[in-house]
Amino acid sequence: METTSPVLPPAILEAGTDMHALLARLFPICRSITGNGVRQTLAIVQEYLPALQLHEVPSGTPALDWQVPAEWNIRDAWVKNAAGERVIDFRQHNLHVVGYSTPVRGWFSRQELDEHLFSLPEQPDLLPYRTSYYQPTWGFCLSHQHRLALQDAYYEVCIDSTIDEQGFLTYGELELPATEAGENPADEVLFSCHCCHPSLANDNLSGLVVAVALAQALAAQPVRRYTYRFVFGPGTIGSIVWLSRNPEATARIRHGLVLTLLGGPGPFTYKQSRRGGAAVDRVVALALRDTAVAHNTRPWLPYGYDERQYCSPGFNLPVGCLSRTPFGEFPEYHTSADNLHFVQPKQLSEARALLLRICGIFEHDQVYRNLRPYGEPQLGRRGLYKGIGGGLEGQEWQMALLWVLSLSDGDHSLVAVAEQANLPFELLHRAAEALAATDLLAPV
Amino acid sequence: METTSPVLPPAILEAGTDMHALLARLFPICRSITGNGVRQTLAIVQEYLPALQLHEVPSGTPALDWQVPAEWNIRDAWVKNAAGERVIDFRQHNLHVVGYSTPVRGWFSRQELDEHLFSLPEQPDLLPYRTSYYQPTWGFCLSHQHRLALQDAYYEVCIDSTIDEQGFLTYGELELPATEAGENPADEVLFSCHCCHPSLANDNLSGLVVAVALAQALAAQPVRRYTYRFVFGPGTIGSIVWLSRNPEATARIRHGLVLTLLGGPGPFTYKQSRRGGAAVDRVVALALRDTAVAHNTRPWLPYGYDERQYCSPGFNLPVGCLSRTPFGEFPEYHTSADNLHFVQPKQLSEARALLLRICGIFEHDQVYRNLRPYGEPQLGRRGLYKGIGGGLEGQEWQMALLWVLSLSDGDHSLVAVAEQANLPFELLHRAAEALAATDLLAPV
Amino acid sequence: METTSPVLPPAILEAGTDMHALLARLFPICRSITGNGVRQTLAIVQEYLPALQLHEVPSGTPALDWQVPAEWNIRDAWVKNAAGERVIDFRQHNLHVVGYSTPVRGWFSRQELDEHLFSLPEQPDLLPYRTSYYQPTWGFCLSHQHRLALQDAYYEVCIDSTIDEQGFLTYGELELPATEAGENPADEVLFSCHCCHPSLANDNLSGLVVAVALAQALAAQPVRRYTYRFVFGPGTIGSIVWLSRNPEATARIRHGLVLTLLGGPGPFTYKQSRRGGAAVDRVVALALRDTAVAHNTRPWLPYGYDERQYCSPGFNLPVGCLSRTPFGEFPEYHTSADNLHFVQPKQLSEARALLLRICGIFEHDQVYRNLRPYGEPQLGRRGLYKGIGGGLEGQEWQMALLWVLSLSDGDHSLVAVAEQANLPFELLHRAAEALAATDLLAPV
Repeated sequence: METTSPVLPPAILEAGTDMHALLARLFPICRSITGNGVRQTLAIVQEYLPALQLHEVPSGTPALDWQVPAEWNIRDAWVKNAAGERVIDFRQHNLHVVGYSTPVRGWFSRQELDEHLFSLPEQPDLLPYRTSYYQPTWGFCLSHQHRLALQDAYYEVCIDSTIDEQGFLTYGELELPATEAGENPADEVLFSCHCCHPSLANDNLSGLVVAVALAQALAAQPVRRYTYRFVFGPGTIGSIVWLSRNPEATARIRHGLVLTLLGGPGPFTYKQSRRGGAAVDRVVALALRDTAVAHNTRPWLPYGYDERQYCSPGFNLPVGCLSRTPFGEFPEYHTSADNLHFVQPKQLSEARALLLRICGIFEHDQVYRNLRPYGEPQLGRRGLYKGIGGGLEGQEWQMALLWVLSLSDGDHSLVAVAEQANLPFELLHRAAEALAATDLLAPV
Repeated sequence: METTSPVLPPAILEAGTDMHALLARLFPICRSITGNGVRQTLAIVQEYLPALQLHEVPSGTPALDWQVPAEWNIRDAWVKNAAGERVIDFRQHNLHVVGYSTPVRGWFSRQELDEHLFSLPEQPDLLPYRTSYYQPTWGFCLSHQHRLALQDAYYEVCIDSTIDEQGFLTYGELELPATEAGENPADEVLFSCHCCHPSLANDNLSGLVVAVALAQALAAQPVRRYTYRFVFGPGTIGSIVWLSRNPEATARIRHGLVLTLLGGPGPFTYKQSRRGGAAVDRVVALALRDTAVAHNTRPWLPYGYDERQYCSPGFNLPVGCLSRTPFGEFPEYHTSADNLHFVQPKQLSEARALLLRICGIFEHDQVYRNLRPYGEPQLGRRGLYKGIGGGLEGQEWQMALLWVLSLSDGDHSLVAVAEQANLPFELLHRAAEALAATDLLAPV
Repeated sequence: METTSPVLPPAILEAGTDMHALLARLFPICRSITGNGVRQTLAIVQEYLPALQLHEVPSGTPALDWQVPAEWNIRDAWVKNAAGERVIDFRQHNLHVVGYSTPVRGWFSRQELDEHLFSLPEQPDLLPYRTSYYQPTWGFCLSHQHRLALQDAYYEVCIDSTIDEQGFLTYGELELPATEAGENPADEVLFSCHCCHPSLANDNLSGLVVAVALAQALAAQPVRRYTYRFVFGPGTIGSIVWLSRNPEATARIRHGLVLTLLGGPGPFTYKQSRRGGAAVDRVVALALRDTAVAHNTRPWLPYGYDERQYCSPGFNLPVGCLSRTPFGEFPEYHTSADNLHFVQPKQLSEARALLLRICGIFEHDQVYRNLRPYGEPQLGRRGLYKGIGGGLEGQEWQMALLWVLSLSDGDHSLVAVAEQANLPFELLHRAAEALAATDLLAPV
């Protein structure tokens, strides 16, 4: 089953406040790896990205070493005391229910109930986020203070959920085709983010709304060298399903990024692809260097988000993971404190800008050849010292011209020039364009 | 002349105290590069390693650029004062005589005698260790205090030694064959240590007793991938003789270590082979990293112990040198303070454990191939998350499984995985074995 | 037009004071990129290097992307006040006139004149050095204090210069041929320095006099493996003209250095060639390491002196730049403070010694082969431990012998041995010669 929404003029997410507003709209939905929460989420995304394709994959479908799981949905859940009062109520916070909880209804002693309760003694005000996808069970999450206050002898429990073996896994996919494709399909850039977490703002609604904003910006560009592909799916099983169904697109991926945890306050963190020295690893390092924000880089680790699947050794795709503070390294992680206050518009906006810079490098990286390579050419005679306006003149501009000429021997891409010259990629790109407008430089 | 001792059940050296006891038994023997001291030493080693082969090579035999020297033996040596009292007495300490001293008997003035005396003014309590293998002379070593006390006008000198051009050079060799050799001889691991020093405990009885203990442990292993070869010979000329007589075994050496100075108190020091990046260099670095002891690594230097011969450019064998504090860098070096107190059981025991860890890596290093390389396989379904007991579970165990799967692309050995993952080799080996017991992994 | 001076016995520049005396003699001449100042300078150089060839290249001659400029000469220049007094006088300092000033004669208001004056407000006592080669204009340089004192309403201005389209560009070239060339021309070493600056001592009379002294020393050597070529020409256009006229010599360059700023007080600075790892880059690094003077190394930058031309990507020659404190990094740079006091004999002498060391490495670097590579050879038997006099004995000498034997496998040159052994090149060269005098070593 593949559907697309009617084509409507979408709202454009450019400002951080716009991204935050979309995030706030998506926040209350109870998502999981399957079910209506994902459908509702992607339907809203489709309002912003009308070309988004929604895919429904039947439960039980084989996917690499896995199978699509049964579809989980939940209508209501509660724990009532003897007085019939809801002392734990799914309607108040969907983190209250352990994800994929099996249906249950009945009276339990306080002690019996306790085995199905999860809280954080060291963060006694916060609800934890828990799931149990592959071991059928049920449970409730609550703050530790809340748990300690449950002092009745018996409680009535209800989880009104369904686990449907005839259900579906839902994911969304957007393709922004290259504008100048020749006979063969264009090389691709993949962006992937997970959409399976319930009311958690940073993990990973932040990645999702930044991806939506990035896709809108790329869709508006008149020229795209690459085809850009966005996958919005549940963590792990979503990327596994996508990989299993798209061998040809997979083979065309030249660069890719998993986007996650982009809304919190920490510095940007880039986790390299399994290859380590792939073009995407160099490009992201360069974009981070050129951006005046705190950041750090980490080597490949076979643990984390969906880069685990894209970089599994059979695929070994050049896919890194871009986040701010990584999972597990901030106290709000996987708790009710990962909320709409934790994610700030400015942080989303910085992430979007960084990704546009990264895509700018993807689009403009190029090997050039110096057409007058014997001695330095006379730049003054060609008016190049004057610069091209917009502040592009003076000593740094001149150094950019000289570096491009010096290293344009057919071996160095502009990324390599930027690395060696320690000058901004964008400046070198402008210098290369100015030189290519004369008789001095040509793309290889 | 090749001899083997009768096969007797040997005492097993496992505890540091056992190794120290053997060392104490060997300590009083007056060893040199040839002669009965070496024979006695190796005969005692044979009690512990009945399969040890003793080799006697005639003086004058050519060996690479050298010749086997004349055999030196000594019965007694003394300096007497006019009263006939022994004021220097070889029977009290065999360091008193310069090794390879020519025979002498006669009266000498105090001044004439002085040219044949060696002491350490800066360590006035200690006897130095001196030899003169290739320049015929005689001499006595004594503490500087002792020397200053010799105030008589004349002394009678006697060195009752023999230098026999018809003698032999003695060395010992133990081969522990690989247990699963096919048609072709197995690859070999070489351990080499010198046994030519008289009453010096660290240099190199420590290397010798640790080698004996290691050989016993390896002999007891039911499976050996490699043939392990132990050479016990005099420094320099011993390894040169062995190399000259064993071209075929030499060609089969895949890893090797010179063992020396393993009983002192300093941190372990690994000197890399001439190749620098040989497998043995990586394996020892890994074993030192995985062992919670102080250590450091040094690059190749064409000076030191018998690695000079094994790594000479014609052979260029992958042979490093494992010690604690290197020669010349501790004040007890080549003095009477290198004694049975300087070497401690705990230090010998740590050295044995480190070498067993090194051999464990030699035995278990292996390139595997992930048989389900597309996406991550479901470990839970195969029960792998449960671990395999013995504390092998939990997060580190899971990371070990993931690292092995991620890097088992046919290019990375387990050593490479351990280096990149920064996880203990032994843990990764266990993880690989657990995975290989399923359908997920196979050795290449 | 090519001319050579009559062959006369030249004065030999060996001491720093001799070099400084030549520098002082050249200092008053008003040089520019063309004209009689260059001719006078090179005629004096010819007194010291009689084999120097002078080349005159007509204005308008194409040279790579450039043309030889018109020839500029100047007889006099002044600014007079209403009283007819010379308030700025070219005869007092030739920095007073902007280089390549067009001729001018007339009365100017103080305000009109001001647009043609150049001073340094932050260094109010110093005259700046200014030129305008490619934008026709005229101007005067003066100290800022001087400028502020010019308070008259009108001034008479005269620049008695000529710009001759039928003129010439002058450069000098010296070839010291290899002494043992075979049928094919020998490989070459290039030294290049600019001679276009007027009364500036460090930039670049220092480079010029050190080059003259170096050429004299090399000319006196009985054996030269390489042909040494010295180019003395105006900056930028000089090297471009030379490159355009000498494709065959260019192709033979194996190592090269631009010599500049060698007389100031700062540490030596080596700027690597564009290749980065060229032999010259390793050799200079080694010579600096072996010399007990402060120094630092910088990577390639497509800005600086004539290495910009030699290292342009079409040529990509192995040419680095040797200086002391680089241009623009000392306050005297391009001012009247770059004078005869700023440059000191000791500094010139150190530069000459360093360059002789560098040339010594060029001459003596060599791959050797150990002829007894199996085991260590007996050095004592061949008398090598005794050393070869001149302090070449003892432990460092022995280590040099061992390192040469260890690494002479046909792959390591002496430079590589010196780098790995961390021993002086000269010591290793002597050790290799001593070994090659026996049966142990031979050049490959």
